[in-house]
Amino acid sequence: MKQEGILYVVGIGPGNLQHLTQAAKNALESADIIIGYTTYIFLIKDIIMGKKVIQSPMKGETDRCKKALELAHKGEKVAIVSSGDAGIYGMAGIVYEIAQREEMNLKIEVIPGVTAAFAAAAVLGAPIMHDFAVISLSDLMTDWNLIQKRLELAAKADFVICLYNPKSQKRVKQIQIAREILMQFRTLQTPVGIVKNAQRENQEIFLTNLQEMLNYPIDMFTTIIIGNSHTKILNGKIVTPRGYQF
Amino acid sequence: MKQEGILYVVGIGPGNLQHLTQAAKNALESADIIIGYTTYIFLIKDIIMGKKVIQSPMKGETDRCKKALELAHKGEKVAIVSSGDAGIYGMAGIVYEIAQREEMNLKIEVIPGVTAAFAAAAVLGAPIMHDFAVISLSDLMTDWNLIQKRLELAAKADFVICLYNPKSQKRVKQIQIAREILMQFRTLQTPVGIVKNAQRENQEIFLTNLQEMLNYPIDMFTTIIIGNSHTKILNGKIVTPRGYQF
Repeated sequence: MKQEGILYVVGIGPGNLQHLTQAAKNALESADIIIGYTTYIFLIKDIIMGKKVIQSPMKGETDRCKKALELAHKGEKVAIVSSGDAGIYGMAGIVYEIAQREEMNLKIEVIPGVTAAFAAAAVLGAPIMHDFAVISLSDLMTDWNLIQKRLELAAKADFVICLYNPKSQKRVKQIQIAREILMQFRTLQTPVGIVKNAQRENQEIFLTNLQEMLNYPIDMFTTIIIGNSHTKILNGKIVTPRGYQF
Repeated sequence: MKQEGILYVVGIGPGNLQHLTQAAKNALESADIIIGYTTYIFLIKDIIMGKKVIQSPMKGETDRCKKALELAHKGEKVAIVSSGDAGIYGMAGIVYEIAQREEMNLKIEVIPGVTAAFAAAAVLGAPIMHDFAVISLSDLMTDWNLIQKRLELAAKADFVICLYNPKSQKRVKQIQIAREILMQFRTLQTPVGIVKNAQRENQEIFLTNLQEMLNYPIDMFTTIIIGNSHTKILNGKIVTPRGYQF
């Protein structure tokens, strides 16, 4: 009898295996085939030794998902990995979209994880203690006007704002424009935390503010957290009060 | 020689130990004293057996933090627990605030975790695949006008919206008003996911829409995710496309 296939869509967290959940580890261990972007496969290499691994470069997202779905549909136990949480700018959505279009009826299980913003927040102090918005500055698949509108409205709403994909080698203007939009609603002294490789090897942490933030190294491995109007720096940590009286 | 104290501020995830990270587990295991709200202590009882446990009821947040800081300051290894991620509406902020005011110089380490919205998203499908806002409807410590403003601006920005603390026994109007605000910007057919006890025992999942959402059970253990203008229901899952072509 053919075994029933399953596709686990696994968020591996920020990359350090310490921040992997038990459920994510179990899914990776029970899968026979692991599919993912080369960088993420490397991060989990110690727990997938001996398994069949299908790696693909950046931007191969849809092909990876199709391959993963096909294999699971044939009865294999497959895990496709995303960094952070697979449901936050990860692989979960496209997996469901392709499965539906291809009329593939198979078991899909999404395993949540620790997203980059929370990994960054933990090392910065407690910047995200109140209502917040998460915005990707990548305009590869999203209209830049919509991104700008979201930045403006999130700033106006006094959300703590987490920026993903702030800058790449070819995409350098977005973070400058984002800062200009934020400056219309927040003071130049608003605390900003910049974390590169959060909770990974070579982690770098910078505490700065809206005025100075562009003087720090920012790239695709960087998460940026901008405080709300109450956020402050206490003993070298960024803290957004929730409102407790003490 | 007195040992150096440490305070771990630990996010235990949604409650099921499967979604605890290794780092959170290590922190709980290495601590000698565990402090937390009774419900959360119960959820982790299997991994803290034999340790000194200080439980306190809801609303004892500041006292819990003071106690935890005092003990760590005296040289104890202490873990204070939050559900979800300790840095998202959790204990991390107040811990840093009190430590600064009391001029306590001690080691504090925040361990990130899986927040309720992500735990809920994973069982709903892939509703949070794009930019999103997280808003607590509790007006205990936040001005209700500010919460309404955030709802309006987040709706206008077409964020996927995650609602925390949607309703309690005494606080029932907020979710009704929130829905009315959202209806000004989104169609009545906008998918809404309601998850009670996400990834815990007695989990309940409801897929509905803006029109019908108030017909479902909503309480303090419920997380609500409202789709953006592109969110759809595919094979019984809520999916927000990120924009991949396939």
